[in-house]
Amino acid sequence: MAVQDRGERSRRSILEAAASVFDERGYDAASTTEILARSGLTRGALYHHFPSKEAIAAALVAAQSEALMVPEHPVRLQAMVDLTLEYARRLRSDPVLRASVRLTVEQSSFNRPGMTPYRQSADAILGLLREAERQGEMLPGVDLEELTQFIVGAFTGVQLMSQVYCGRQDLMARVSTMWRLLLPSIATPGVLMRLRTTPPPSVAGAEGDGVREGDAETDGTARPPVTPRAPWG
Amino acid sequence: MAVQDRGERSRRSILEAAASVFDERGYDAASTTEILARSGLTRGALYHHFPSKEAIAAALVAAQSEALMVPEHPVRLQAMVDLTLEYARRLRSDPVLRASVRLTVEQSSFNRPGMTPYRQSADAILGLLREAERQGEMLPGVDLEELTQFIVGAFTGVQLMSQVYCGRQDLMARVSTMWRLLLPSIATPGVLMRLRTTPPPSVAGAEGDGVREGDAETDGTARPPVTPRAPWG
Repeated sequence: MAVQDRGERSRRSILEAAASVFDERGYDAASTTEILARSGLTRGALYHHFPSKEAIAAALVAAQSEALMVPEHPVRLQAMVDLTLEYARRLRSDPVLRASVRLTVEQSSFNRPGMTPYRQSADAILGLLREAERQGEMLPGVDLEELTQFIVGAFTGVQLMSQVYCGRQDLMARVSTMWRLLLPSIATPGVLMRLRTTPPPSVAGAEGDGVREGDAETDGTARPPVTPRAPWG
Repeated sequence: MAVQDRGERSRRSILEAAASVFDERGYDAASTTEILARSGLTRGALYHHFPSKEAIAAALVAAQSEALMVPEHPVRLQAMVDLTLEYARRLRSDPVLRASVRLTVEQSSFNRPGMTPYRQSADAILGLLREAERQGEMLPGVDLEELTQFIVGAFTGVQLMSQVYCGRQDLMARVSTMWRLLLPSIATPGVLMRLRTTPPPSVAGAEGDGVREGDAETDGTARPPVTPRAPWG
């Protein structure tokens, strides 16, 4: 048990060290020597867990899907909004997720994951949109596949621009803007006016524990829900 | 005169050769030796125009702004849509523009341009939105700065995803989707129903200019202009 824990801990140390190096330098310029120095482990320990730099990168990219946990909210469009807000929040706080996104967006000599990470995000979004449609939350005539592709693409670009402009300081606000502009084209009016495009109060307030996911939106009762800005409404 | 022409031609040869190398390998892995081999010029000619690899990259990034030509259309929201469609078309056909975008999106040892290319795009879009507002095309209450940032970010991510999925084969269709989803939140109903989200027939139909790359989705001439899907209208 203790041995297993230690193994898991050193694997995580390597991933975190590699993430910070990849995040700073990109894949090609990152060296295993620097990753080792930051992790404080021996080269033997590194190769025990990962045979190559490429294997570390692959493990980092796989970690991206962990950030795609679907919240429980009964209104599925709200769950979708909250999923992206929580993802944005984690992008700001989690170097492993940041490195994973950088490896996805950039081409490098790393045999890059190509579509897989986009597909994982798209699957999560499309699943939520289908549930939303079944529950009558969607306006008729919206092409869910097309919409999914746009949401994933737009989110990717929005986080990239937020990173370039200000190191993702304003990422949550940019994601809120995206939803305020997009939801009026997809949600029925009755659902639209009840959707919140900012983080639920409990998540927005709770910064103490690094582990919890977006499961707190059920106590969104503290604040009245913010209705999206519907310019014609 | 002839000498100047030759100078301009060899400068352009270097940029095109460099663009193809950067587009394939990224900045860090690109070598001036390979750029030279592709341009067919001497090293002396290369250094006559550009003192370093970094100087070539900077010239490529500067070329991006040339693709931001604002169309003449009297409806300024239509001009904005057409600007992005034309930019998308050029991205597909022009390796210099593609390399420029890659240099912008990726971090590398190139002292990267950071915000500048995003700012140039944002300036063009914001200018058009302000004119659209003055002409009464915009719904009241839309924050033009915020909207501009979203449009530039969304376009960036949409073209990135199209590149990863299919080498930008479906880029025009994805840009059209973006506008169908976004315009209902920003345009007044009267303007909305007259907006076209596919390339103008003249661009789509013009085969003789030697520049276009024969992309199938632009021959939308057979179809009547598609009005954006306004789910409530």
